Amino acid sequence: MPQHPHPAIGLQVTSLDTPSLLVDLDRFERNVAAMAAYCERVPVNLRPHAKTHKCPEIARRQVEAGAIGITCAKVGEAEVLVEGGLSDILIANEIVGPQKIERLMALARRADMMVAVDHPRNVEALSDATVRAGARLRVLVDVDIGMGRCGVPPGDAAVELAQHVARVPGLVFAGVMGYEGHTVDIPDRSERRQKTTEAVAHLLETKDRIERLSIPVEIVSGGGTGTYDITGPFGVTELQAGSYIFMDTTYRKVLQGFEHALFVLATVISRPTARRVITDTGVKTFAGDYGQPAFRDIPDATLESLSEEHGNFLLNEDSDVPELGEKVILMPGHCCTTANLHEEYYVIQDGRVVDVWPIAARGKSR
Amino acid sequence: MPQHPHPAIGLQVTSLDTPSLLVDLDRFERNVAAMAAYCERVPVNLRPHAKTHKCPEIARRQVEAGAIGITCAKVGEAEVLVEGGLSDILIANEIVGPQKIERLMALARRADMMVAVDHPRNVEALSDATVRAGARLRVLVDVDIGMGRCGVPPGDAAVELAQHVARVPGLVFAGVMGYEGHTVDIPDRSERRQKTTEAVAHLLETKDRIERLSIPVEIVSGGGTGTYDITGPFGVTELQAGSYIFMDTTYRKVLQGFEHALFVLATVISRPTARRVITDTGVKTFAGDYGQPAFRDIPDATLESLSEEHGNFLLNEDSDVPELGEKVILMPGHCCTTANLHEEYYVIQDGRVVDVWPIAARGKSR
Repeated sequence: MPQHPHPAIGLQVTSLDTPSLLVDLDRFERNVAAMAAYCERVPVNLRPHAKTHKCPEIARRQVEAGAIGITCAKVGEAEVLVEGGLSDILIANEIVGPQKIERLMALARRADMMVAVDHPRNVEALSDATVRAGARLRVLVDVDIGMGRCGVPPGDAAVELAQHVARVPGLVFAGVMGYEGHTVDIPDRSERRQKTTEAVAHLLETKDRIERLSIPVEIVSGGGTGTYDITGPFGVTELQAGSYIFMDTTYRKVLQGFEHALFVLATVISRPTARRVITDTGVKTFAGDYGQPAFRDIPDATLESLSEEHGNFLLNEDSDVPELGEKVILMPGHCCTTANLHEEYYVIQDGRVVDVWPIAARGKSR
Repeated sequence: MPQHPHPAIGLQVTSLDTPSLLVDLDRFERNVAAMAAYCERVPVNLRPHAKTHKCPEIARRQVEAGAIGITCAKVGEAEVLVEGGLSDILIANEIVGPQKIERLMALARRADMMVAVDHPRNVEALSDATVRAGARLRVLVDVDIGMGRCGVPPGDAAVELAQHVARVPGLVFAGVMGYEGHTVDIPDRSERRQKTTEAVAHLLETKDRIERLSIPVEIVSGGGTGTYDITGPFGVTELQAGSYIFMDTTYRKVLQGFEHALFVLATVISRPTARRVITDTGVKTFAGDYGQPAFRDIPDATLESLSEEHGNFLLNEDSDVPELGEKVILMPGHCCTTANLHEEYYVIQDGRVVDVWPIAARGKSR
């Protein structure tokens, strides 16, 4: 934590150099509160995914608002979160190989760690390491509920792996995990609901089969921002949603319950024609994996292309504005990969910078 | 520069944690030498683009091999390059707004700086700042030769802007720049040659028209890795090519003259089926803007998807290898945006780490 206030604090937003990543504090706080209230109402536990923000300050605020802990994808992210004071962390991923497991054990001595598994050899490696380290590690069996990525199939394979986890020393079998990544962005809401419940039903059937063997399944983990209100009431015990805090143009297309809270301040560096606007923000500012950035205040502009360092927009009619040198506000296409390109969030309220939050886990993909 | 050798130096490649970004030193050096030899032969000057590597160590090696200077896209990159000892730098971009121009002036007092312009108001702002700073700034007129991004049209508009630059105090009119970004990756070589020469002809005509006004045009800057051998012999005086040092799966499709020298070491973290291989490398390791990563040593695997932290590959037949936990080597789809996600290059020779080069300008998009 810096000992002196960041020099940007107190500046007007438009006094920041560009590109700068902005968090609208009021909108962010409303998003955090809205998801917390939803989860309390269902009720379902919330363990929000830190891959979206990679920022211990935000994780702490999510926990203060009622989250039971934090989800992340990598040991490197967990290291930053534990360093930042978070104490109950699910790495919703397979942690494979001696180097990663050694780092995981160092964390397990300091915090309550949980990981996913989908292979008996990995279970044994984790068990051995946990015993040697004198640590405690909770484990979820990762079930592939249709995404076709990691995970064992629902049913027999998952039940056998759960039995294996429950049997080996050192590990605590905590439950099952399944991510409906193939359904979170289906645009049609009723189709999304149907496909999501079909997917999660596999997870719940697997849970029931494990419990029939007298192995308690404390946790059923799943649910993204696009499906939290489908899986939450349907039997999932912990939601992993992450993007709800920021939103982006992609999630906006399928979901209205949360507000855009993440923006990029850009400068117009070229106006080659009365229709064309070039900003100083390309795929090195926005990522380019998913969805497209858009102006916050010019709804009818079309993104023609993103180069590495340029956004190339066409207005729908000739215009003098935005003019050369003007600072403009853009909305990312994908909040998670955009945040991973930046060093800090400039936290904005009433047009001024009120705080700067380091993105301490940026790039921590190991 | 670190005072102690990096602890990774001497390790076997497969002892590195993953994901790690690797530079194959021999291949890299052959690429650097091949481009230098080509440029000497034509002859044409080489001012390679540092957006590809963002690494002063690599820039120094390019200059040692004969490059006349370095190209970059942002003031923040130039700051890192000047700090790293580079002294002749083209920011091949419009530098707009008082904050950026102030930082540019700080650089112009320490190094020989050159920028692109496409608007008279920007020319005046640069002129005023240069006069106030008592600095010297070389300026290229940016000509849009068909890409439709920044730049003035060829012909009258470019000639007028050149006259304007030549007239105002403080600035040194150095020439013209045009980037044929719309032709560098046309797969068919003869079509690429035709479209590229059409584009560059506009730039050369503009040059001739400016010279007829007795304004010397010292520099005609252009040429990417996909077109260097078209524009180099065609009248461009400085090539901006960058990717030739590393190559990637995208450039490999259109160009055979250079070798893959940039790789990512990954771990197989899941083998859900005998066909499916999941690595710990997604768009937060590879970017996702352009092209797709591929295994170096498994040519017939298909990338099914890249999530944020997972690569999802299908083998073309059932196989036990690569096995769970195995470290595998991948080739990026786009070298420039991939390098921008990492902190350092692990430099590899004969299977061992021989050096570690910091990617000091990573994320320097301001």
